[in-house]
Order: sequence, then structure tokens, then C-alpha cells
Amino acid sequence: MPTRLTNFFLRTLREDPSDAEVTSHRLLVRAGYIRRQAPGVFAWLPLGLRVKAKIEAIIREEMEAAGAHEVHFPALLPREPYELSNRWTEYGDGIFRLQDRKGADYLLAPTHEEVFTLLVKDLYSSYKDLPLSIYQIQDKYRDEARPRAGLLRGREFTMKDAYSFDYTDAGLDASYQSQRDAYERIFTRLGLEYVIVQADAGAMGGSRSEEFLHPTLVGEDTFVRSAGGYAANVEAYVTTAPPTRSYEHLTPLEVLDTPDTPTIQTLVDRANSAHPRPDGRAWTAADTLKNVVLALDHLDGYREIVVVGIPGDREIDMKRVEVAFAPAEIETATEADFEANPTLVKGYIGPWSEQGAILGEESATGIRYLTDARISDGSGWITGANEHGRHVFGLVAGRDFATDGTIEAAEVRAGDPAPDGSGPVELARGMEIGHVFQLGRKYADVLGLKVLDENGKLVTVTMGSYGIGVTRILAIIAEGNNDDKGLIWPASVAPFDVHVVATGKDEAAFAAGEAVSASLEAAGLSVLYDDRPKVSPGVKFGDAELIGIPTIVIAGRGVSEGIVEVWNRATGERTPVAISEVVEALAAR
Amino acid sequence: MPTRLTNFFLRTLREDPSDAEVTSHRLLVRAGYIRRQAPGVFAWLPLGLRVKAKIEAIIREEMEAAGAHEVHFPALLPREPYELSNRWTEYGDGIFRLQDRKGADYLLAPTHEEVFTLLVKDLYSSYKDLPLSIYQIQDKYRDEARPRAGLLRGREFTMKDAYSFDYTDAGLDASYQSQRDAYERIFTRLGLEYVIVQADAGAMGGSRSEEFLHPTLVGEDTFVRSAGGYAANVEAYVTTAPPTRSYEHLTPLEVLDTPDTPTIQTLVDRANSAHPRPDGRAWTAADTLKNVVLALDHLDGYREIVVVGIPGDREIDMKRVEVAFAPAEIETATEADFEANPTLVKGYIGPWSEQGAILGEESATGIRYLTDARISDGSGWITGANEHGRHVFGLVAGRDFATDGTIEAAEVRAGDPAPDGSGPVELARGMEIGHVFQLGRKYADVLGLKVLDENGKLVTVTMGSYGIGVTRILAIIAEGNNDDKGLIWPASVAPFDVHVVATGKDEAAFAAGEAVSASLEAAGLSVLYDDRPKVSPGVKFGDAELIGIPTIVIAGRGVSEGIVEVWNRATGERTPVAISEVVEALAAR
Repeated sequence: MPTRLTNFFLRTLREDPSDAEVTSHRLLVRAGYIRRQAPGVFAWLPLGLRVKAKIEAIIREEMEAAGAHEVHFPALLPREPYELSNRWTEYGDGIFRLQDRKGADYLLAPTHEEVFTLLVKDLYSSYKDLPLSIYQIQDKYRDEARPRAGLLRGREFTMKDAYSFDYTDAGLDASYQSQRDAYERIFTRLGLEYVIVQADAGAMGGSRSEEFLHPTLVGEDTFVRSAGGYAANVEAYVTTAPPTRSYEHLTPLEVLDTPDTPTIQTLVDRANSAHPRPDGRAWTAADTLKNVVLALDHLDGYREIVVVGIPGDREIDMKRVEVAFAPAEIETATEADFEANPTLVKGYIGPWSEQGAILGEESATGIRYLTDARISDGSGWITGANEHGRHVFGLVAGRDFATDGTIEAAEVRAGDPAPDGSGPVELARGMEIGHVFQLGRKYADVLGLKVLDENGKLVTVTMGSYGIGVTRILAIIAEGNNDDKGLIWPASVAPFDVHVVATGKDEAAFAAGEAVSASLEAAGLSVLYDDRPKVSPGVKFGDAELIGIPTIVIAGRGVSEGIVEVWNRATGERTPVAISEVVEALAAR
Repeated sequence: MPTRLTNFFLRTLREDPSDAEVTSHRLLVRAGYIRRQAPGVFAWLPLGLRVKAKIEAIIREEMEAAGAHEVHFPALLPREPYELSNRWTEYGDGIFRLQDRKGADYLLAPTHEEVFTLLVKDLYSSYKDLPLSIYQIQDKYRDEARPRAGLLRGREFTMKDAYSFDYTDAGLDASYQSQRDAYERIFTRLGLEYVIVQADAGAMGGSRSEEFLHPTLVGEDTFVRSAGGYAANVEAYVTTAPPTRSYEHLTPLEVLDTPDTPTIQTLVDRANSAHPRPDGRAWTAADTLKNVVLALDHLDGYREIVVVGIPGDREIDMKRVEVAFAPAEIETATEADFEANPTLVKGYIGPWSEQGAILGEESATGIRYLTDARISDGSGWITGANEHGRHVFGLVAGRDFATDGTIEAAEVRAGDPAPDGSGPVELARGMEIGHVFQLGRKYADVLGLKVLDENGKLVTVTMGSYGIGVTRILAIIAEGNNDDKGLIWPASVAPFDVHVVATGKDEAAFAAGEAVSASLEAAGLSVLYDDRPKVSPGVKFGDAELIGIPTIVIAGRGVSEGIVEVWNRATGERTPVAISEVVEALAAR
């Protein structure tokens, strides 16, 4: 039976919702798919629920094809497992916590690594039980600081999360590959273009990690890729260190007066005018070493001052720095931090001073000093001399100063080399649509998930974690499939297969609409039938365009000649078709 | 493709879980359907999820048949709507409350009346839009004081909740009837015996309210029914008041010494020995008026002392009293309460004293006095005289004392008359499996849901609310369908249609098991195939009995003669069937 619009819970809106920042949010609300309940929290109306169910069905089919079994965990979980993994603390303000009437601590789970691990520990004990992949499609919670962009970043959202369990690294590789393949099939069926990029594992821990990004100019993630096949999230890009150079033949350092040069630009100008380079070339920002003072707030409450050194021609990329220092929270040092560390001469900071080393765990201050890989041994730099108005020239890494290690802190630029040697990278933007992780033994270690191997020895299980944001994907599909009239769903996820519209005052048009709807349903197509009696064709067509079902059938004046129009929502093309041939014409699509 | 046990996430357990109080909990855990995560919070394993999905599918079909549209609300909801309806406060400790990172109040919704009302208010404005019925199948939360009995009373549970919207009372009646009919169809399809009883609306407010109870000796609800068709929850049973009598010819009251008679029994004994009844019959407890002092804790924090008078041969039923005083919390008065009210002489309390009226809002104490309907005008009683060791005899209601109204506080007994005159009632026990309410205009009033009627006048919408506890029903089905070996699912909700077991070491048995499984699946039946190679027949049969799929097919020694056994899990009957005829034999079931 077709779904009749006269008897369907749907109201399209003429106005955009005032809080909508992105197209998908705007159109999904206007076309009656979702409705906001609180910041980042939405109710699903019948149309939206149908699209969501179609996406979930595709995911389920591919999960089953990958041999994963469906389970379902509660959203409300006790604190203890998350305490053991340290995520209770690590998530900071990012999760919802609550207490029950007895004062016991609970959370609304952001992901379920811990309890999946404990479930398998509960039930399995032998290598013979493995490999195992289990998944759920379930509503998750994160207390985002700035819930925004509708479903793209909600506080309640539906996710498919899968977890694999193996007892060998090769087993984990196979399980990982199987989920990765399933993801490729899922996104292909959903009509979602994707790029698989190396990703940082972030708060999840673990080793191998890849993100599926949907390339789009409005994406919130930046990634890099080379023509040779390298692709990575900028957070995961690894800087290639230049070869180290011998110190021989390098001139000694010189400390020079450089008054009023607290910025890279003023320094470069001053250097070129007052201290020209012996070889006659001009100094550039790339010759300078910029030292950025950061404050890390560690989970235990300790605030650590750290200095990061990068070439002066690059900006620091705080997202990359955040990943490098996770789970600590990070900000640039405040005035108070400088007051507490008077040794650091603002604007003229460097690792070296005439009084000795200033930065580094071995130095007088004990402040950690981490540098970009380009600050390789034997490279020489102009940098602050830790005296107001003075810089040191020809300061050579390894000879004149030491660091506490390298850090991926500098921005990545188009033209930078791919770390695998596959050529220069270009930058692009995308939205995350899936994430596959090799967690390794982190959770199994902490929670004690071991099995007996072939030799009767207890071995720790190695795990993978694989996530797709179902509601996020729905929004991304809407984001990429619309025009100024409304949504244009791909057939695989459209709320109905066909939208039949009867127009005019002629009873015959409605009789034809009814008959066509019934025969399409009989042929296995789902139909939304606009049978509203006193609504103008303009309003009906506008609603059809807004709702975005890919195929629209118009029963109007042509009905008297046995003709309806088949309207392709995407192309706008309208084709007259004999009523007797509509089913055949549409079934063939 | 059949689901193979060698590749399925399932472990049956030999031991009962230590915390299992009821059969369904014990068997669902042992057979690998669910797993406890916290008190009243469970994870669903693949078998359990399949049963749950089947129940949900049946509910969905019948909701759609009843013209209800599916939506889906978040569990996490803001405080405001529940503040407006007063349920934020009324629920007391019974709901989970939490705050987000900005300190805004949220709850995990126990039911969704408020937000459904607001949704309709948001989108609808005319009588032409009505009637409307919308529903969801969604995970709900209640912070039960004593989560127990597994899924029967959980803190996280899945519910189908539907809401109807009409603008006339007749419309509400029709919507209510439509949901009520759907419930009858649902429970019939689920194979769940039910009785529809009048119910008290409790915290939900509103007028007409019926519960679907599944009759069972272990039910936590008591209900009454008459042979003439009356059925009600004991909380909703209405006492028939005897006809009032004229005071003429009634003898005046007498105050008599009754030392050491603080209980009904001591009082009756003393009365019969020291003050025999003039007509020679013995005094019985039914001649006495028992006055019970209760303390009500109102939501605003005020503690009110109330006295309830009931015939002395009946106990007070605190559940009935709770309903009568909801949403106040109630307990019997404490020593402190008596100390604060010294006028009440414990053991000898009554409405009358030689100093004047003691109980009643118009009395000296101002304490509310509510009485059972049997304390009708003209009825005479023996009751406390508010002096230690003294009672008043022949105290006539209406003549010698007044009350502040009647209350349903006395226990209901088998043999009590049905209020509709359909004969004496019997008591029975049951479990609630569904609840239909006429909420009326309560929520629409508070939240401002009005529509324009035919005359262009704004009218307040009238609503209904209809709930089925999906996970609870699953447990109740399990509770009613098992034996000492395990579960025995009705076919409509079994996790698989057929459980095929290959036994022995003979390859032929496994080949036959495989072939039979494949052909059953091809015929549209879902199959769990026990293909475990080195597991004894005894273990396999035990698992099959525990899991409880209604039909088991055994491929064993008979295979060499082309025979398998079809084992009916419920009756235990085993029938040899030719392999070539298995599909036909089972499809016919």
C-alpha cells in the first residue's frame, strides 16, 4: 500500500531553521526529516527514520558478509571499565557522566571498547574461539563543546561500532582488512566518494589507523595526498628529516644585536640589512628557528611548560600539536606562564644563551624542548639568544644545542614530500565517514583478556575497533546531494523509491495517481503518494523537490490521454510515459 | 545461508547466574541471549537481539496497520518540557538526571509525552491535521530503587510508546480503540495470554486507562475479575458503598472502659466478654473501625499527617493508598509523628472524643480524615475514644462524626462485589504487558498544544498514550515458555525457525546437516546449524534444549538410510522424516 501524504506525519517548512549552519541541517529540517530537541540532539521524523533504516540495512548486510555478529550494548554503563582504561578521566568534559540514586557513577558511552573486551573475556577462553568480530548499531553520546552543523557533529548520534578479537598479529591484520573491505563496499553502495588516509589513533590508542574521508570543500578535516598514492590526515603526516650534516667547516655561532625584532619578519629584515649573509643570498624566514612556548594541562592537573621549535617560515599547527601531546590539553603560554618562567625572554627565546643551555630537560630550566624534524643535526639557524634585542646566528643543531626529541608541530604545505617518497603532497579537505583502528593489546592488557593458545599458554588478545557514524553519514549524503530546490537522494537510501503526485482538480488524475502508486508498490517499489486534494501543483512540486525522492511521477492533464510524466529529480528531465508502461520504465532504473 | 555454530557468537553456560531471581533471567543468561552490565542494565547478544527484532517487527506491523507513523526521539532530553509538566519533580528519584558541560539540566527520558506534544505543536495547527498517531520503539531509562528479575524490571529497557492526538473526545475514543485493538492483535501474535483490566492512571494523569496483564502466578500485579466480565487492577477497584441508613432508632453512642485493647483482636475479645452485643450476636472485627495514621511527604517537602479509617476486619493495602495519594510519598506514621501530634492516643484513635471531634479538617487537630466507602452514613462502629483504654460503641457515621471524603485504602478480597454489579470478584496475579491511557488534555494544556477547529476557534488537543515494554515482553514470553531443560520459544519470536544438529563422527551426518540446512534456508526458514565437529551429541542436544528453538532436526545415524529426526522442542516428540521431505514437513508447520 502506498503511503498517502494526506495520512502521513510530514510537514515541510517554508523557512530555514534559524540555527542551521550547513545545508544538510537546513534541508533535513525544512523537508521534515529531523527536528531539534536540544543542542546536538535531534528527533527523527518518519522520512528521516526511513533513510536511516536504509543506511543501517546496508551496513548490516556488509557486516554480516564480513562475518561480524550483531550485538547491542546499553548506552548507560558503569564507570569501572572506563576507569581501568583511563578513559573515564581522559575524555575530560567530552562525555556525559551521571550518578544513580545510590550515588554510583555511570557514563553515557562514547564508544564501547571496554565492555566489548569484557564481554569476550567473560565468554571466551581459547584461541579456538578466535577470530571474532562483533558489532552493534547503537546510539552514542559525546558532550561536544560546540555541537554544530546539525547531524554532522551531534551530542547524541547513531554509530556502527565493530570490534575484532585475535590472538596473533596476522589475525588482527586479516580482521582489520576484512572490516576495511566491508567499509569500501558500504561507502560504494551508499554512493559516497571516499579517500582512505592514514590517521592518528588519538585517544583510542593503538597502532595502525586509517580514516575514510569523503572529499568535500566544506570538510572539517584536512588531509594530504600524493600522486603516488600516499594519503594521510594532516595530523598523521610525518615530516621527512633532511640528512644530518657534519659540523666540520661550519663557522662558529655569533651573537648579534638585533634590536626590536620580536617577530620573524622584523628579524629577517634586520638580518638582511645589518648582518648580510656571507654568500650574498638573502636571509629568509626559513633560516630562522621559531620557538613557541606552550602550556600542557595534564590529566593529573599538572601544568607543564614546553617549548616547540619549528622553521620560522612555517606556522605551528595546533591540531597536530594536540595529537602529539594527547591526552593533555594544550594552549599557548599565557602571560602568567611567562611570569612564572622569567628565564624565557619573550620574543628572543632560543635553546642557547651566553650563560649556557636554556631549553631542554638537561638545561638549567628543565623545560622540555621538542623540535621539528627539519631541525636536524648539522643544520644552522638564526634564533633568539635569550636576551632582549639579541639573536644568535649560525646556531648549529647537535653542536650548539640539544633537543628532547622531534615533534610533528609545523603546518603541512602543498609541495611537502610524502614520507613514503611518492612525491609532493597536495592538501584537500574532507569529512570523516569511517575509521578503522588496530587497537592492539591496549584494552586486552588493561582488562585482562587472555586466551590459551595452541600450546596451552595464556596470550593477550589483540583487538581492532571500526566505526561508522550512521547519522553523520546520512547528513554527509544530504550535504553532497542537493540543489537550491532541496534534497536529491541516491536511490540506495531514498526514503521512498518513487514520489507520485496527482495534480489538478480532475478526479481522473487522482484515480490514475492511485492506480500507478498501487501498481508500483505491487512491483516492489515503495511509493509516497501526494494525494492532497486542494493543494496547488506548484506547492506539490516544490514539496517533491524539497523532499528529494529521486523519481517523481506526475499524474496530471496527460492522464486523459493515458500519459503520466516521469520526472528525474537529479537531472530535472521530464519524460512522458504511457500509464501502462510506468512500472516497466521505473523497475528498469 | 544457515548460521553455523562454529562461527557464531554464542556460549551457553553450565551455571545459573548468581544474581538471577527469576526463570527468564536465569535461562536468558545461561542460553546466551543477554549479559548483565550493571544492575538492571543488559547487553544483548546475537540470539537475544534476534528475538527482540522479531517482537519489534510484529509491533511495527500492527502499529502501521493501526495507522500510526514511526518516529524516534532521543533518550537524552532537556529539563524544560518535563519541568512544565511537573514530571521533572514528580518522578523523584525514579529518573536519571544529568548536566552537560555547561551545567544545563537533562534527563534520560522515562517516557516521552512532553516532547511528542511539543513536536505536534511545532508542526500542526489545524483540526484537518488530526487525528494523528505516532510511535517509536526506543530505549528508555528509569532509576528503579530495586532493579530486579532480569529484564522484567530493568533500568534501561526498550519500549514501544505511541501517542494519539485528536481535537474531540470522540476522536480520542476512536484513536484509543484503534491502539487497544492493535494491542490485542500484537499479544495474540506473540502467543501471550492477556486480560484487559481497568487501571489507575498513576503518575501519567488522565482519565480512561487500561492495562493488559498476562495472568501468571508469579506476576507482581494483583487484579480482580468477576464472572460477569469486570476486570481491574486492585489499585483501580472501586469499593461499593452500602446504602446510607437513617439515624432514627439508632441508640446513642456509649463510651466504655476497654483496658489493654490496643489491637482489633483484643478489642473484639474484650467487647464480647465485658460489653456483649444487645442482640446476642458476637462482636466481630467487622464491627470495629480501624484508624491508621499515615504520613504523606508532598513534593514541596511538606509532611502531612492523615488518618484513614477502614473496617477493622480488613488490612490497609499500601499500594492502593499510594495510588490514592500520588504523587506524594507515603508511610505509616513514625514515633516522631505521634510525638508531634500528642492529641492522637496510639491504639485508641478515633474521630470522636468526649472533648469533641478529633479528626477531620474541621476538627481541633485539623488532621484530614478519610474513610473507606463502607463507613457510610448511618453505619455504627466501635472505635477508639482517644483516651487510653477506652472505646466508643455505637458511633454512627454522619451522626457522631464527619469525614473529609472516601478513600480506596482497604484490601480487596475474593468475594467482594464488582462495582459494575457483575457479581463477586476473584483475585488473580499477572504481569503488565501493555498499558493504554486516555491522557486527555493534561499535557496539551500545560504545553499549549491547540489547533483551529472547523469554526476557526482554537481548541486544546486531547491525547492518548500507549505503551508496550518490548524487553519486558521478551522476558515474560521466556518466563512462560520453558521447562527444566531450557527455553521453548513460540515460533513467532524464536531466534531461528529451525535448529539443525549434526551428530556423530560420520562425515555423512554433517553433509546431510549442511544440505538440510541449506534447503530449509532456501525455503525461507532461518536455520541455526550446529556443525561443531568434536562435540558430543549430549552436549549438542542440551544446548538445543537450552536455546529453545521450537523445531530441531537431528542428522545422525539415520542419515545412511536417508532419514533425519524432527524433534518438537515443546512436546519432546521425535519423528523420523525422509531427508527429501524435511522442507515440506517443516514448511507446513
